Amino acid sequence: MAIDFRVTVPWADPAAGRPAADVRQLGFATRATLATALSWVELHARVLAPETIPVSCAPHRVLAAPVGSRIDRPDADRAARDGHAVLAADTEAADPYTPLLLRLADGGAWRHGDAITIASGAAMPAGTDAVLPFEVAARQSGVHQGGARHDRALAVTTPAAPGAGVRRRGSETQAGREVLAAGRRLRAGDAALLADLGVTEVDVVRRPRVAVVAIGPKSGDADLVGPILLARIWRDGGCGASATMGDDLPATLTAAAAGADLVIVAGRSGSGADDDAAPGLLAAGGTLDLHGVALQPGESTGLGQLGTATVLLLPGDPPSCLAAYEMLAASAVRRLGGVSESELVPMVPLDRKIVSGIGVVELIFVRLQDRRAIPLASDGLALLYADGYVVVPETSEGFAAGSLVPFHPLDSSTWTRSP
Amino acid sequence: MAIDFRVTVPWADPAAGRPAADVRQLGFATRATLATALSWVELHARVLAPETIPVSCAPHRVLAAPVGSRIDRPDADRAARDGHAVLAADTEAADPYTPLLLRLADGGAWRHGDAITIASGAAMPAGTDAVLPFEVAARQSGVHQGGARHDRALAVTTPAAPGAGVRRRGSETQAGREVLAAGRRLRAGDAALLADLGVTEVDVVRRPRVAVVAIGPKSGDADLVGPILLARIWRDGGCGASATMGDDLPATLTAAAAGADLVIVAGRSGSGADDDAAPGLLAAGGTLDLHGVALQPGESTGLGQLGTATVLLLPGDPPSCLAAYEMLAASAVRRLGGVSESELVPMVPLDRKIVSGIGVVELIFVRLQDRRAIPLASDGLALLYADGYVVVPETSEGFAAGSLVPFHPLDSSTWTRSP
Repeated sequence: MAIDFRVTVPWADPAAGRPAADVRQLGFATRATLATALSWVELHARVLAPETIPVSCAPHRVLAAPVGSRIDRPDADRAARDGHAVLAADTEAADPYTPLLLRLADGGAWRHGDAITIASGAAMPAGTDAVLPFEVAARQSGVHQGGARHDRALAVTTPAAPGAGVRRRGSETQAGREVLAAGRRLRAGDAALLADLGVTEVDVVRRPRVAVVAIGPKSGDADLVGPILLARIWRDGGCGASATMGDDLPATLTAAAAGADLVIVAGRSGSGADDDAAPGLLAAGGTLDLHGVALQPGESTGLGQLGTATVLLLPGDPPSCLAAYEMLAASAVRRLGGVSESELVPMVPLDRKIVSGIGVVELIFVRLQDRRAIPLASDGLALLYADGYVVVPETSEGFAAGSLVPFHPLDSSTWTRSP
Repeated sequence: MAIDFRVTVPWADPAAGRPAADVRQLGFATRATLATALSWVELHARVLAPETIPVSCAPHRVLAAPVGSRIDRPDADRAARDGHAVLAADTEAADPYTPLLLRLADGGAWRHGDAITIASGAAMPAGTDAVLPFEVAARQSGVHQGGARHDRALAVTTPAAPGAGVRRRGSETQAGREVLAAGRRLRAGDAALLADLGVTEVDVVRRPRVAVVAIGPKSGDADLVGPILLARIWRDGGCGASATMGDDLPATLTAAAAGADLVIVAGRSGSGADDDAAPGLLAAGGTLDLHGVALQPGESTGLGQLGTATVLLLPGDPPSCLAAYEMLAASAVRRLGGVSESELVPMVPLDRKIVSGIGVVELIFVRLQDRRAIPLASDGLALLYADGYVVVPETSEGFAAGSLVPFHPLDSSTWTRSP
């Protein structure tokens, strides 16, 4: 299915070089819906090829293929608790009024009538099938039972069921069984656990290479958005690198696109009065498929291609840039990297009402205090004070004070000031 | 206030060397409540001394002192949007039926009656106090107004209010004003934002040095808990390092304690049948203040000191170790590091009921699917399948299926499999 995302604008005034409808001189006459822009991302950001890496390097990587265990786990019947290994059938006659006596051994080969002291995790002695907990058996010494004399004996007050207190071989997983699905992003502990299952190598999706070209607005905010974007690209599984800025923006863009899967340009995404606005440069050197999105802040976002790289044009002022990253660019990075998981979004009560317009997706930065979300003015410092943001869908006029709203943390670890 | 946390046990059978009440041979006869254990941590894990570092090194560090802005921001009255800088008073007479004409200039000194094209972020020309958006003004050329002829003019249809479209100098912050509070853990973007406020150095709490001594149970799970603990220590703001294990456990412990603020021993925390159980070694070489906590899994946790280091004894099997880390050790690491923020815990519906006993805090590992929490059997693989955990307080008998429960993610970024 070929979709033409190109925005058609009526060039009513060729002399002025601007579309008649573009009264705000933003470089676009109409805005695409965020859903349309996300469809474009879906078509253009296809998952990258897999590569095989040692499992020790796998944390934070995304599995390209399911992983199966190489071993049975446990690898043998093992004690699940400290106690005494016995054959359950030997203990059938035990009850609190007539304790049953077993020979007590601390190791060695098991024989009928033996109880062997065992620590949690140790392999069950051959012949035994249950672990009696310490509290249902008392040690005794110098005991006569029938004709035999035990130097040390165990008085058992409760019978054991076969398998009680035992982790059976293969009860947790078996060799060949799938333990992790494709698309999983491996956690810090996963590598150790996989190694424990005999898995030494895994197929993971190549990390997306993302070039950040931070040209910023004329006021010189460029050094703010670069670090903010790089941290988020890493969170989303990509390797971000700031492109070296030369004086020649077209040459910088071309060089960045040559080595990257994705190029994010931050700044000059409107047309304004600039000769060197990014949308015009992208249209000239590659394709500009879509420019202008019904997203607030971040409406001057543009989408296109340069060579084989997908190119996203984001606004240069920090709140707009971050909003466009979160709502669009993050999806591109995750899709390239094969992340098929979505964030769990906690619901938080809103401290004050939020008013928004119909027809535009609005992102409101909020600060958390006493576990309530306080909306912030979206100036440059909002990013310093904000703990996260709330999204108002295009079909909504906002949220009432006190309503529960989905809270998107700005940081990967969600910390909130304690009350 | 001196609190004696030492557990008093009746040694009824000195020959056996075990307290009479310790029928389960865990090494402790009574269990402290989790709240008591946390009080001990509160007393012993005191925030470390501050150090001054460059702001570029500050992400993830915890502020030891408030940070104030060094500058006014914005540093001048600046345009908040693209448009035309004007004096609002000049536009009072404008209305859609009788557009007001202003002289259009693209720069230079402003004079009464001028409109100067301006880009968002640029400093306002002296004399102007508002930015007219493009859509309320149309460019015209060769216009006569009164006796004057403007080569280029702007037809204004809506008056501007003073200050409209302008970010006033110091409106976001002023030099000397506190922008971040002590105890804040700096986010990835904060360093760039602080640098933008003229802040070049910050006072942060020294990172806690945490030595991990993973001795594991006899079954050899030691290599599992080390990596799991190190990842969590880093999440909580500490620098974790695995202690080099010699054959001599007391010497290993003493060496680890000498260079660390906190020592976490994983394994042999019960007494079992071991001669070299960690609680006995700690009691012999330092102090064992508390052993046995009403926490499931993780009840054999012990707390004490060795030299100047706080020592936490955690169980060696991975689920118990992780449970004890999350419920107790994490608090020690965060307190040493000055983290005064708490995690925001999302509420998630429970897929199946959880049954728990009164008098013990129980930690249940869960997997998220379709944004519901599915309780897992707490075997070793629970950690591989679990996305997080649910805590049942000691006063609760559990939760009904479908009830909303607080979900604690195991990973710093909370990813859930998409439906």
